[in-house]
Amino acid sequence: MQVGLIGLGKMGYNLALNLMDHGHQVVANDVNKDQVQSIAEAGATPANSLDELVNKLEKPRTVWVMVPAGEVTDQVVDQLKHVLDEGDRVIDGGNSNYKDSLRLAESLQEKGIFLFDVGTSGGTEGARHGGNYMIGGDQEQFKQIEPIFKDTAVENGYLYTGRSGSGHFLKMVHNGIEYGMMQAIAEGFEILEKSPFDYDYEAVSKVWNNGSVIRSWLIELMQNAFSKDGNLESIKGVMNSSGEGKWTVESAIEFEMAAPVIAMSLMMRYRSQEDDTFSGKVVAALRNEFGGHEVVKK
Amino acid sequence: MQVGLIGLGKMGYNLALNLMDHGHQVVANDVNKDQVQSIAEAGATPANSLDELVNKLEKPRTVWVMVPAGEVTDQVVDQLKHVLDEGDRVIDGGNSNYKDSLRLAESLQEKGIFLFDVGTSGGTEGARHGGNYMIGGDQEQFKQIEPIFKDTAVENGYLYTGRSGSGHFLKMVHNGIEYGMMQAIAEGFEILEKSPFDYDYEAVSKVWNNGSVIRSWLIELMQNAFSKDGNLESIKGVMNSSGEGKWTVESAIEFEMAAPVIAMSLMMRYRSQEDDTFSGKVVAALRNEFGGHEVVKK
Repeated sequence: MQVGLIGLGKMGYNLALNLMDHGHQVVANDVNKDQVQSIAEAGATPANSLDELVNKLEKPRTVWVMVPAGEVTDQVVDQLKHVLDEGDRVIDGGNSNYKDSLRLAESLQEKGIFLFDVGTSGGTEGARHGGNYMIGGDQEQFKQIEPIFKDTAVENGYLYTGRSGSGHFLKMVHNGIEYGMMQAIAEGFEILEKSPFDYDYEAVSKVWNNGSVIRSWLIELMQNAFSKDGNLESIKGVMNSSGEGKWTVESAIEFEMAAPVIAMSLMMRYRSQEDDTFSGKVVAALRNEFGGHEVVKK
Repeated sequence: MQVGLIGLGKMGYNLALNLMDHGHQVVANDVNKDQVQSIAEAGATPANSLDELVNKLEKPRTVWVMVPAGEVTDQVVDQLKHVLDEGDRVIDGGNSNYKDSLRLAESLQEKGIFLFDVGTSGGTEGARHGGNYMIGGDQEQFKQIEPIFKDTAVENGYLYTGRSGSGHFLKMVHNGIEYGMMQAIAEGFEILEKSPFDYDYEAVSKVWNNGSVIRSWLIELMQNAFSKDGNLESIKGVMNSSGEGKWTVESAIEFEMAAPVIAMSLMMRYRSQEDDTFSGKVVAALRNEFGGHEVVKK
């Protein structure tokens, strides 16, 4: 198929190569002209503007957007709404909030343009050699563009998840689970680190990956990480996050259900970003007030 | 090698078959004579008592104990202490608390008998066709019995973890991580269930297992479970536990470190075992006291 691709960052660039490996024709655009030049040398058709990209695609067009979620995605989709025609399709492959996807899908629908909200997992390596897609949007239209997902995913690595929003919602929950799994693994290794025993964490990760109940890609990644830095001495334990864990917890609260482990994973990330906390000061002050317990002075 | 095996439950019976598949000679004992009879028919040498088992083994003997952790393991190891000789080895393959293993190792050491505390993961299928072992105990002695672990584990599925206690401690932490991972997965599926979308959970598990970040054996097991009961309608959400999660949290508290996700996973299990809670009544009563908010009457 012919695919327009907007966004040649780590994910988009690798996806372009993956698409071309499978015989798809890629018309590529990015704000960074060097990236456009580079992917053109790899075989893509360069487009220096959205107009040019749209003009180089035959109708019905398929435009895959791989730009940062939020404002940038909003702007690009809004611009596309003006230059695309009825029957064209836009794929949002970023980590957009599913409520944004619902809003954008409605907006595009006014012009008869279809939006697919596609949660993408597997990292840059997946984008390059076999990704994982959770795809929400029109089912009939999905069948028309299914080959590009099938070809660029690992075997069985894509799923049509239902109406608009369901793809990004599923990816959001996937990431929420990821937060909890990562925090559980992390706490386990810290208990080992504080124990009276002397473990080789790379060897521990390796044995856990061969036949144990917790074998998983995340523990494989820890085996890699420990092979490079056996006690993680070169990094600090600051855990950043990009939004999907937060949205998962917001959804749990919206649905008024208990998801304490995912919520706690998120909050432990926030805690890790602080050197000191006001809540800590409050407890210290109270202990001092009622019991005269010593406080640590600044 | 010649191996004495005490305990022919689900794990021990499968382990016996696995050992014999790899050319090891098994002398087997269990309180259930039918199980002894059955494994004898499969090729093992039956032993109707510990004395008989010990007499049928050449020195230095290796006796693998696969009985329930706690009192039963304690009793069996204590009995073995009286009938085994200096230089013999006892393998505790159960889910014993590592502090018990330390105590039992010390007790056996008085007679020059070696105890190996072996955390075993992978379930009955693993015991039968390739288990996972975390092995604490004397390093020189370990080399003598390494073949029986190597042969019955999956490839790379065993690790000598260091001095006595380190094997069961590592298995305990493995299970603690397992609690957290399972609760994270569980909360994720409940968010999907409460969402406005309509997911096929078997298909979701399948796509998550092919190229996503959270791919893991646990999600593979969910794919199996959902293939049999798409919405888990035939079971109740009561989560039992057998002790290792509790010990992991106890260790975190002993080391005075934060492990909130593993602790919360454990407490969500306890909560699931209650139909109603006293803490719920307290909060309801307080809301009624200060704000006249209605309570749900029994």
